[in-house]
Amino acid sequence: MREVTLVEVGLRDGLQNESRILSTADKKQLAERLIAAGVKELEITSFVHPRWIPQLSDAAELARSLPDLSDVRYRALVPNRKGLERALETPVDEFAVFLSASETHNRKNINKGIRETFPVLEEVVRAALARGKRVRGYVSTVFGCPYEGEVPVANTAEICEGLLKMGVYEISLGDTIGVATPRQVKEKLKALAGTIPVERLAGHFHDTRGTALANAYVSLEMGITTLDSAFGGLGGCPYAPGAAGNVATEDLVYMLEQEGIRTGIDLEALCEAGWLAEKLLGQRLPSKVLQSMAAHCQAKEGNRE
Amino acid sequence: MREVTLVEVGLRDGLQNESRILSTADKKQLAERLIAAGVKELEITSFVHPRWIPQLSDAAELARSLPDLSDVRYRALVPNRKGLERALETPVDEFAVFLSASETHNRKNINKGIRETFPVLEEVVRAALARGKRVRGYVSTVFGCPYEGEVPVANTAEICEGLLKMGVYEISLGDTIGVATPRQVKEKLKALAGTIPVERLAGHFHDTRGTALANAYVSLEMGITTLDSAFGGLGGCPYAPGAAGNVATEDLVYMLEQEGIRTGIDLEALCEAGWLAEKLLGQRLPSKVLQSMAAHCQAKEGNRE
Repeated sequence: MREVTLVEVGLRDGLQNESRILSTADKKQLAERLIAAGVKELEITSFVHPRWIPQLSDAAELARSLPDLSDVRYRALVPNRKGLERALETPVDEFAVFLSASETHNRKNINKGIRETFPVLEEVVRAALARGKRVRGYVSTVFGCPYEGEVPVANTAEICEGLLKMGVYEISLGDTIGVATPRQVKEKLKALAGTIPVERLAGHFHDTRGTALANAYVSLEMGITTLDSAFGGLGGCPYAPGAAGNVATEDLVYMLEQEGIRTGIDLEALCEAGWLAEKLLGQRLPSKVLQSMAAHCQAKEGNRE
Repeated sequence: MREVTLVEVGLRDGLQNESRILSTADKKQLAERLIAAGVKELEITSFVHPRWIPQLSDAAELARSLPDLSDVRYRALVPNRKGLERALETPVDEFAVFLSASETHNRKNINKGIRETFPVLEEVVRAALARGKRVRGYVSTVFGCPYEGEVPVANTAEICEGLLKMGVYEISLGDTIGVATPRQVKEKLKALAGTIPVERLAGHFHDTRGTALANAYVSLEMGITTLDSAFGGLGGCPYAPGAAGNVATEDLVYMLEQEGIRTGIDLEALCEAGWLAEKLLGQRLPSKVLQSMAAHCQAKEGNRE
């Protein structure tokens, strides 16, 4: 494998889990730094009701503020038809629908059972496709649920089949609570391979227990070529300082480039985005490469802050 | 593979890199918690000159303070004959000699070239074996040197052969500056397999760029069954807060147990050692499992501090 598509989810999955709410101008600046570093696939926000996620309540405003670039794709989550309508009035290029592989988690998150969620997503996908937009699907808690524990892979397979039938082009398999280890990643992907073409699947790993990069590595071995990540490793739970969020884009890029896989991303320029996020959020971010580059620069050039 | 030997190096490789110097009583308490968690192989200190590493200047005192337990092995580094003599007057069970695969790093670290280091180590090994003690070897900068960059695997192979010839029973291959990625680990181990039996090798990974757990995973796939780790992920460079040290024992144990590999270590009890270290050192430690367990306990039982 020579190329991997990285979907930068820091501005959405990262910031939605940070306690400090950033201004639209700050988010725009972060997006611009990410783009300057070579990020092409940029999930910027979620068009959920602002009451759910106040961190992302400026979804439309942010989408409208970003530069129009032919080689950068802006993505956003849409929970339902109403969210899609709001998103369609902005220059967002691509949408994502989401649900959980665990019934309880889906109910807690979306306030509906999995079966009842399907018609809602189907309506969104149909409407988006009719407007010529691609739609991605997110399936969360694939590797474990905080309420139900182990989630049968049959749940995920059934949901994936349903999403593909709707017209979703790709499904991102989420280790939402960061419990997966390589063996489980291999087993789940092997089981899914029976019904879902691997090129339709992406990996979305959280680093809650430190295993995200190992899981990403193993998923590449299993044929996955699209991975989600967040710059800085953004997205740690606000009540656990230092706890991890998504796999850090910096760490993933470092590993991939060393493995001989091109990402198109400039690591030092990427760190500029992470350091700005640290300043804006007022805290250190968990990416190891970000911290070691900071130490390196500090040693070379004196204090950076 | 059903079992892996973990060598807990936090009290040595961890604490020697922490700016705050702990008292012997504090180290003893940490060792006792590690033992209570099921740690059997415990590298406790280094008998180097106190001027080199003031953090470990209480080597003999610490070694004498620890409980005499038939199923726990205390280990210590010895740089030369003088260090060995000091160590032999304590109840330390096993010794380790060390050198670097990179000429420049060896000179900076030991003040000698690699060739000149060999007779020194040979003398130590011979004297230790004569006293019925096992001796381990550490080779550092196997995967990269801060001064020379890439280090040829031939250097490592030659050093390993020399160490085995002296009578060292096992060699720990160090990614001292945490630059390795899985491909490099595979390549180096494959190249070494030509001359060194894999059961004589151990993996020693630092997490400076977030790749340590992935490297540990790959080294297990390559036949390694002994891994070094530090509880809490201790050993980050003092001038880079948040920067990583050794691969965290907690994260490694979590992954191994999920992979179906027994470690004999109780994860919650292990976290008690990490939380105590955080309190004593006055800082958060990088282990992700440590942080996520803390958040979990906090949520369940109120603040832990």
